[in-house]
Amino acid sequence: MGNVIADMSMSLDGFSTGPNDGPDNPLGEGGDRLHAWMAGLGDWGERPDLTGPHAEVFRASRGHVGAAVMGRRVFDNGVAPWGENPPFHVPVFVVTHQARQPLARQGGTTYTFVAGGIASALAQAQAAAGDKDVLLGGGADIVRQFLEAGLVDELQLHLVPVLLGGGVRLFDRMGPEHIELNCVRVVDAPGVTHLRFRIMR
Amino acid sequence: MGNVIADMSMSLDGFSTGPNDGPDNPLGEGGDRLHAWMAGLGDWGERPDLTGPHAEVFRASRGHVGAAVMGRRVFDNGVAPWGENPPFHVPVFVVTHQARQPLARQGGTTYTFVAGGIASALAQAQAAAGDKDVLLGGGADIVRQFLEAGLVDELQLHLVPVLLGGGVRLFDRMGPEHIELNCVRVVDAPGVTHLRFRIMR
Repeated sequence: MGNVIADMSMSLDGFSTGPNDGPDNPLGEGGDRLHAWMAGLGDWGERPDLTGPHAEVFRASRGHVGAAVMGRRVFDNGVAPWGENPPFHVPVFVVTHQARQPLARQGGTTYTFVAGGIASALAQAQAAAGDKDVLLGGGADIVRQFLEAGLVDELQLHLVPVLLGGGVRLFDRMGPEHIELNCVRVVDAPGVTHLRFRIMR
Repeated sequence: MGNVIADMSMSLDGFSTGPNDGPDNPLGEGGDRLHAWMAGLGDWGERPDLTGPHAEVFRASRGHVGAAVMGRRVFDNGVAPWGENPPFHVPVFVVTHQARQPLARQGGTTYTFVAGGIASALAQAQAAAGDKDVLLGGGADIVRQFLEAGLVDELQLHLVPVLLGGGVRLFDRMGPEHIELNCVRVVDAPGVTHLRFRIMR
């Protein structure tokens, strides 16, 4: 079985969106700043044409991914921009409260909606991924639930050097149990520092 | 005139102390974890005997420091452990609400208490530092005030790979003005990642 890898962009002050997010502005004010480093990187899969430090991280993070898990809000915000041929090219499991029929897209992406909680979503994703990794793509609440349940093996954090002053905190309302990590790779790239951590058990 | 350098240890979830800090436990539960990387590094001044990545960062951060500024609570918690020959070896200006007589210590450290606010403390520190840097050593509230007032040139952040789940947030209640930084140096050292940023104006 592969690893469960939480993959998130975060501002230096700990936010994964900017302030005042809402249906019309899902990333919040300035939240697109957190994803600017990704511009032009394209698909999550193998991209042998990509070069540079971002691309290396991108490939290492996502090239061995066999399935993805995300929250319903991330899905709701993403499904339109991701379009008919989404960048995942793997089965995507959406944690939701309302079951619905799967959505098949081109290029290998299928959205499956899981109403049974994070453990059920993870079990389905791991079954689909086989010996490849499961990518946990947010939002912050889903990542927190996975961390608190001890279900994350690695955290790939894209630290963006901006203080947003508000928004959704990636690490908020965590329990009092300290979680130790081990930093296994640092890539200092233009406009972002890619930090990869193993969660210590 | 030198730079104003805020120098802080922070957990991955953004805390500069652990939870439930108080007079008997100034760093909070697990807060000593944030400073463990410093063990054995000793004085803030030039230490040509130190080697390794921590030492390089330590010297680069603190070797060119001509004065320091800190909050009263940091002083209150530190004055006893720092002892008769404190590690600073430069004039230290303590931001406080109650003026009191300066305290001279051995080895070049003098604690001067400034009741006129952060701008006054900084002016006195810069006068004492001459063309050397002013080190801003916390706490979080003082660093925030300096950042919001646009008085910080560089941020030296010692990012410790632990999720504490509570405590005092280093970047909390910041204004809505986004502050852009430029990461100018990353040192991946055992148990800590040293990140140095220039504040963009």
